Amino acid sequence: MKVNALASKTKGASLENFEYEIKEHSSFDCLIQVETCGICHSDIHMIDNDWGMSRYPLVPGHEIVGRVVDIGNEVQHLKIGDRVGVGWQASACLECEECLNGKENLCNKNVGVIVGRHGGFAKYVQVDSRFAFKIPDSIESNKASPLMCAGITVYSALRYAGMSSGQHIGIIGIGGLGHLALQFAQKLGNKVTVFTTSKDKAEFALNLGASDVVLNPTPKDKLNSKLNIIINTVPADLDWKYFINQLKPDGTLTFVGVPPKPISLPIGMLLDQRKRIMASPIGGRAMIQEMLKLAAEHEIFPVTEIFDKEEANLAIEKVRNNTIRYRAVLDFRK
Amino acid sequence: MKVNALASKTKGASLENFEYEIKEHSSFDCLIQVETCGICHSDIHMIDNDWGMSRYPLVPGHEIVGRVVDIGNEVQHLKIGDRVGVGWQASACLECEECLNGKENLCNKNVGVIVGRHGGFAKYVQVDSRFAFKIPDSIESNKASPLMCAGITVYSALRYAGMSSGQHIGIIGIGGLGHLALQFAQKLGNKVTVFTTSKDKAEFALNLGASDVVLNPTPKDKLNSKLNIIINTVPADLDWKYFINQLKPDGTLTFVGVPPKPISLPIGMLLDQRKRIMASPIGGRAMIQEMLKLAAEHEIFPVTEIFDKEEANLAIEKVRNNTIRYRAVLDFRK
Repeated sequence: MKVNALASKTKGASLENFEYEIKEHSSFDCLIQVETCGICHSDIHMIDNDWGMSRYPLVPGHEIVGRVVDIGNEVQHLKIGDRVGVGWQASACLECEECLNGKENLCNKNVGVIVGRHGGFAKYVQVDSRFAFKIPDSIESNKASPLMCAGITVYSALRYAGMSSGQHIGIIGIGGLGHLALQFAQKLGNKVTVFTTSKDKAEFALNLGASDVVLNPTPKDKLNSKLNIIINTVPADLDWKYFINQLKPDGTLTFVGVPPKPISLPIGMLLDQRKRIMASPIGGRAMIQEMLKLAAEHEIFPVTEIFDKEEANLAIEKVRNNTIRYRAVLDFRK
Repeated sequence: MKVNALASKTKGASLENFEYEIKEHSSFDCLIQVETCGICHSDIHMIDNDWGMSRYPLVPGHEIVGRVVDIGNEVQHLKIGDRVGVGWQASACLECEECLNGKENLCNKNVGVIVGRHGGFAKYVQVDSRFAFKIPDSIESNKASPLMCAGITVYSALRYAGMSSGQHIGIIGIGGLGHLALQFAQKLGNKVTVFTTSKDKAEFALNLGASDVVLNPTPKDKLNSKLNIIINTVPADLDWKYFINQLKPDGTLTFVGVPPKPISLPIGMLLDQRKRIMASPIGGRAMIQEMLKLAAEHEIFPVTEIFDKEEANLAIEKVRNNTIRYRAVLDFRK
């Protein structure tokens, strides 16, 4: 079957129309007619081959929401017509210790939707159905798309850092990831402090439910040391000692945004109050289902800018320039 | 009451006889006649004022075991004649969130036995009885002493790093801390891999229950990536990337030995497989009781070199030179 898609044909290139052949599906596959697809910074990294694993033509897109139009004969949990979401991960071995423990995201045979295969900037996409998740009816497709990567990334990171409820959570950066982290933390019963360098975003964060905002954090700030968890959502080199000092005893600083430079820390800073540093990639299948259920129940939705597929290159430029407020989504229905 | 003790009268000085007055006990205090007291590297740091908080004359000693000879009128859990142990911590507020959660070691009003007060290199020592713990009968005093600091430090660190049983634990360094960490991990049902630069210690570790030893680890070693937890017990600057690569997905590298230099790490190394770095100081009261119970049940005892109090300076020199195998204990009964 021929699929119309948008692809970068060489490293860093603008998207162009591109047609490719989808091979016949195997017994667990499902074919999805794409409704919407978010644009993530990882798409840009793949277009630019920043991670050295891109193959061209490259069809980006890994925040996919669409309708199931065909399924393999072993697929049990989906039927034709279901609306499903697919995130970064297209498949895993489903047999290793990590997979059996619901940590498919840590499987060393995990395959990215846009790594060595074609993603969601297309009319159709085919994936292992076991990595396609039913979207609750109350979440519109353009709101569900960013949940599939940005949403699960921050939700899983917060949970594995120990987020429950009644805690005080710090969030560094209010962008696509941060504004979802803020909502997951706050609407699930926690107080949220946001750290940002943007006055506009500070105001936005307060409107979205943050209890307080630290604008332009500097080491001269009063030290509160009240945060159970801080999640860093920005790919920047910050003063990590400052943030560790904002943690309570037994607090955790977790990273989903990756600083370009190595972090450098005296271990004594962690030792006195038994603090932790960790980092977390996307999330496992059970965690994705839980995240979608909670997003529906607590109305945790991204703020999106929606683009037609003809505007894809414009949208990509806005993501590159960090001018999207707060997540870009391509709508393939128009 | 006058107490005969051994003290460093100035920074770095050898121990000399020293007499001081113990003030009348308050209602929760207990007076302990010292039987044995371990020597910890922290005693040396305090003698040398490495942490800038020493007061002279300084009576070291915070791995104290002895008999209760007097108690305040509010003391419930101890009676005169009981054999008790005291570790690094002499008191805490017992009212803050950390104390109420059994994390007295993280209380910001915690007081060290040898910080601004006199420790266990003495005939008697007086502490808040709520930081004196009954020693199980089956543990000899000279074996119990090192459990009170070295033992609880590694036990609590391993538990807070997630040690249960059936896991694979890595231990960096086989000294006073490492040889106890090895026993707690192995005798509580885990496989242990030891990393050491000493051939003698490699052999000792295998005899003590290690499953395997990596002698002189280098980045060229075959990568096993099978360890759930690695505990670093040495105060050295090592190749931390090597050790992070030896962790399984969701693995934790925890520090009780503090490297002199800051550690420097690309966050990407933690992110792909959701790894953690943490550090841990001593342990809370419930954890100390649990540790003593398990040490008795599973015969987890330090290997000790015992010195008379007249040999205290010799023992200190051996601790300084790292020639103790594996923990030095002063016996005040002789």
